[in-house]
Amino acid sequence: MSPKDPAQRFFDKKMTERERAIFEGGIGLAAIYHQFIGTPVSGDRGSLEKLEKAIQEAALLQPHKKSVKVKLNIPSNLSDGGAFNYRSLEGRDLDVTIISEYGSYKATSRMKYIPELKYVLMYVEKIEKTS
Amino acid sequence: MSPKDPAQRFFDKKMTERERAIFEGGIGLAAIYHQFIGTPVSGDRGSLEKLEKAIQEAALLQPHKKSVKVKLNIPSNLSDGGAFNYRSLEGRDLDVTIISEYGSYKATSRMKYIPELKYVLMYVEKIEKTS
Amino acid sequence: MSPKDPAQRFFDKKMTERERAIFEGGIGLAAIYHQFIGTPVSGDRGSLEKLEKAIQEAALLQPHKKSVKVKLNIPSNLSDGGAFNYRSLEGRDLDVTIISEYGSYKATSRMKYIPELKYVLMYVEKIEKTS
Amino acid sequence: MSPKDPAQRFFDKKMTERERAIFEGGIGLAAIYHQFIGTPVSGDRGSLEKLEKAIQEAALLQPHKKSVKVKLNIPSNLSDGGAFNYRSLEGRDLDVTIISEYGSYKATSRMKYIPELKYVLMYVEKIEKTS
Repeated sequence: MSPKDPAQRFFDKKMTERERAIFEGGIGLAAIYHQFIGTPVSGDRGSLEKLEKAIQEAALLQPHKKSVKVKLNIPSNLSDGGAFNYRSLEGRDLDVTIISEYGSYKATSRMKYIPELKYVLMYVEKIEKTS
Repeated sequence: MSPKDPAQRFFDKKMTERERAIFEGGIGLAAIYHQFIGTPVSGDRGSLEKLEKAIQEAALLQPHKKSVKVKLNIPSNLSDGGAFNYRSLEGRDLDVTIISEYGSYKATSRMKYIPELKYVLMYVEKIEKTS
Repeated sequence: MSPKDPAQRFFDKKMTERERAIFEGGIGLAAIYHQFIGTPVSGDRGSLEKLEKAIQEAALLQPHKKSVKVKLNIPSNLSDGGAFNYRSLEGRDLDVTIISEYGSYKATSRMKYIPELKYVLMYVEKIEKTS
Repeated sequence: MSPKDPAQRFFDKKMTERERAIFEGGIGLAAIYHQFIGTPVSGDRGSLEKLEKAIQEAALLQPHKKSVKVKLNIPSNLSDGGAFNYRSLEGRDLDVTIISEYGSYKATSRMKYIPELKYVLMYVEKIEKTS
């Protein structure tokens, strides 16, 4: 167990380090989705990279996040016959990978649009023992 | 395993039902926090109950949520000397309990303000085998 | 001028009542859009009506709003071949009418998807003198 | 009138350029508030500057915005005895200035916390004729 975790005593005593890493991954993905959907975005790569970085740094502040990678898949020719040259960020634009770590486990969680499901899926790609 | 879960094949093969229930709980809590923080609220109980219900029903739509209970702790004398009689919903107003279920496990996740931590904590209160 | 408005002295002295009513309408529309986009919704009318009411009551708390009407245009057969029976609220689902009032003017502001523009437009439909 | 504005025909015919500039300012302020409140922030200046820039660039994409300046007033010693070294962005952290322009008018709109009002006020600081 992480000896410095002031929150641990609020959790079910039988919850494992591995389970906690997984829980923190789920929190991280949903936080990004529900915080940033709706943000105005254009197809300009430079501008998108700034937003990706800002989202990454915000998400990394949450506890037990080891790394966060955000890719916004916005076509560069966004306007597409519409009258304006931007639109709101949608779930299907997101490709996010979060590595959360707790004690001696780390979980790699992912959020991306899955065409077969017609759904922006949040899932756990990999769970590893680190020591 | 839940035979009807079209998302299962995207998860790490070694992830257990118990872990999946926990993951879905984390998603549910963070979704509520980051979606609804900022909503204008008053101290009127009738109005708050409508918002609580709307949040509950929205959160229940996400996969594998068995029950969602939202309590918004807003003092009825909200204005408190300010010029306006409402404010934005803050994290510390929230007391949320989500029961997520997957296969034969259910997890009770909770989000509420913990004074000692000065923090709105998301945690797993209880994990149970259901069958 | 509204003699009880504690905020008035912060505004440009030459701003008219009519202009203020218009300004408050713009605030109200954008608040709804950026607060609620991303909320999980299904095609169930009863559930949608609860969310519509909750959004209306929240928006009405903001200053100088006289009425707010929110219609969420979600098809009842939402799933549409996808694996899940809900999706996130999008801008194009919204049809919102806000009447804001200041002094002796009221403005009717509207937000809805305009197919020719491929855009969720926020606009002022009507401005009236009330006395 | 701006001859290239595809949205103009949806507006009340008697709405002036000056009024339109004001309306677009109100939209811009509320969009920032309700989109970004809740974002995790720390007191690290470098990180805050990236978020400020990302918010500015997003807000500038909306129509008729000429400039957007965002200052996030987060104390550098954020933790303040709490268990964690970050918190959620709140309305009172924001100091935003938007210049919106339409036809031959521009409006300077502002959002910031006003201690006497105990309120994050959105207001129009200045309206100018540009030509």
